[in-house]
Amino acid sequence: MQRRDFLKTTGIGALAAGASVALPVRAEGRTIKWRLASSFPKSLDTIYGGAETLSRRVAELTEGRFEIRVFAGGELVPAFGVLDAVQQNTVECGHTASYYYYGKNKALAIDTTLPFGLNTRQLTAWVMADEGMGLLREMFAEYNILNFPGGSTGAQMGGWYRKEIKSLEDLQGLKIRIPGFGAEIFSRLGAVPQSLPGGEIYPSLERGAIDAAEWTVPYDDEKLGFHKVAKYYYYPGWWETGTHLVFYVNKDQWAALPPSYQAAFEVAANEAHLEMLARYDAKNPPALQRLIAAGAELRRFPDDVLLKAYETAHQVYAEESTRNPTFKRLYDSMMAFQKRADAWWGVGESPMSNFQQAVRRMK
Amino acid sequence: MQRRDFLKTTGIGALAAGASVALPVRAEGRTIKWRLASSFPKSLDTIYGGAETLSRRVAELTEGRFEIRVFAGGELVPAFGVLDAVQQNTVECGHTASYYYYGKNKALAIDTTLPFGLNTRQLTAWVMADEGMGLLREMFAEYNILNFPGGSTGAQMGGWYRKEIKSLEDLQGLKIRIPGFGAEIFSRLGAVPQSLPGGEIYPSLERGAIDAAEWTVPYDDEKLGFHKVAKYYYYPGWWETGTHLVFYVNKDQWAALPPSYQAAFEVAANEAHLEMLARYDAKNPPALQRLIAAGAELRRFPDDVLLKAYETAHQVYAEESTRNPTFKRLYDSMMAFQKRADAWWGVGESPMSNFQQAVRRMK
Repeated sequence: MQRRDFLKTTGIGALAAGASVALPVRAEGRTIKWRLASSFPKSLDTIYGGAETLSRRVAELTEGRFEIRVFAGGELVPAFGVLDAVQQNTVECGHTASYYYYGKNKALAIDTTLPFGLNTRQLTAWVMADEGMGLLREMFAEYNILNFPGGSTGAQMGGWYRKEIKSLEDLQGLKIRIPGFGAEIFSRLGAVPQSLPGGEIYPSLERGAIDAAEWTVPYDDEKLGFHKVAKYYYYPGWWETGTHLVFYVNKDQWAALPPSYQAAFEVAANEAHLEMLARYDAKNPPALQRLIAAGAELRRFPDDVLLKAYETAHQVYAEESTRNPTFKRLYDSMMAFQKRADAWWGVGESPMSNFQQAVRRMK
Repeated sequence: MQRRDFLKTTGIGALAAGASVALPVRAEGRTIKWRLASSFPKSLDTIYGGAETLSRRVAELTEGRFEIRVFAGGELVPAFGVLDAVQQNTVECGHTASYYYYGKNKALAIDTTLPFGLNTRQLTAWVMADEGMGLLREMFAEYNILNFPGGSTGAQMGGWYRKEIKSLEDLQGLKIRIPGFGAEIFSRLGAVPQSLPGGEIYPSLERGAIDAAEWTVPYDDEKLGFHKVAKYYYYPGWWETGTHLVFYVNKDQWAALPPSYQAAFEVAANEAHLEMLARYDAKNPPALQRLIAAGAELRRFPDDVLLKAYETAHQVYAEESTRNPTFKRLYDSMMAFQKRADAWWGVGESPMSNFQQAVRRMK
């Protein structure tokens, strides 16, 4: 008899004997093995590491009985096939970014980030302590998926440009690698968005097949070496104001878990969410210093670009809201939250940050 | 035979029979009961709730076997006696803010916040993903305590003033309720800091025994009603740039826990840390709106006050560093982190936040 069967049997026996009616439903040593499909390569160690953090912690909490084995993007299913794989129960769970599935429903992007959307603390607050999680779970129920926070990169950069962007004029005909809502807005501003996987960006920039490319944050951008072929590094990354990853779990698999294993998954996801942002916040500053030392030139997007992009983004959202009730429901809640939150940020956080930056520049 | 003893015995039997040498040390159904002494009253529901979140989650993860009962400030030990109580094993663990124990060693404040210190994301990053946790644990080992993140309020406000502060002159002789490093700096700026517990602030402000008082953030400030007796609400709260709470555990008690219960405590503390900030980030914005509607008048500290306070703070730190090697070790690490982190913030987060606030004001 396996040890786990032995404990399970004796456990059930003890319960049947009426030891206590107040006892929670216990795992009784059940061993469960899950596979997690990540959308990310191991080279993106901070993002990919979120799933490893989850897996390790769940194993510790369950004394090795609930094992979640992590597979990198493409190992089990295609990198962008994670939603389908979890929905169809090909894998029990996944780690991905919901805006990859923007083609299914644009509302999915709201789980990740929106152009001119919430910053990462605000998005976490809307999800964990306001209406966000309830609304997101309604949406994901259509895919038979339960979603959990899966980490954050913080605000991203605006990408790498071979030439400076001095005004809206410089966006006309600009071939820029950018996906999702960002692409839709760039297109309306006159640029020509390109869809390219991560590995093809560098050679395309190098030979001039594209003029610009957005990726993520300094720590990850540095690895791909974009500064060597497109030195102007723009900010703010207005289309990714606080990018969130997500864990997906197939709802039938979830329902079959003992409650303590459900708790282990949920708490480990929250920890992974916290830890990924901490890691990026520790790794980005020295990466930015190294990029600048290696020749990257920081530039802020001109005001006319930011203002027109802002206006265009809100046109896009208004149009989507008229034809997509799921988008409208999530977007309206998020926007109401954002108006209040930004007013508080303008008092609580920004004046302090701005002073700290200004006084250090003065020294 | 108790159920837990039964499982423990059969468990040990299975191990002795050599079922597997790779099995981790298992809790084997051990029941453990701890008491947690909080420094906070239940009325501060968001801060106090951090310990409740921890307790509930640990119980779920261990199927009710590791029970942590939470006691409000003063119930078991005095609100500011938590460090002593955990050190002396009067209680197994506590939830508090380390700057309350500033009188023992000023370096303890670094665990909570410093004037012109890190913002909350930066402090979490320094602790979780840089040198912070290692250095803090060296310090807390002197108290036989193991420390864990225990939540955050984010950047605090600068408090309530009966008259406007238009320049440094207006601080001369100002009787302001403020503790710790903030008090030391205000004193050097010519003010007369007062030490008052929370409950005495309102009556003292009302009868003019003090001219000003700092407390925390809009959601908590609102409850005490300060706007009715001192309507000028100042920002930024430069002496609490990202206030962190902490869980303390007696190291001998910790060593006696099964590893899976240690993991449960640690992961639940991280979750409580994340959740408290999310709650404040959701609750502060509407609280600020209500305070303004009720007559609070927002004011930014004048530049001469901020600049002189900044300079004075750094003099205080330099002096403390010459006589306190623990302070110097922690402070130097934190400051090196801050210089890099603020440079990144000036590109990654602040330009986006500033644009969002500006464009909304334009509308």
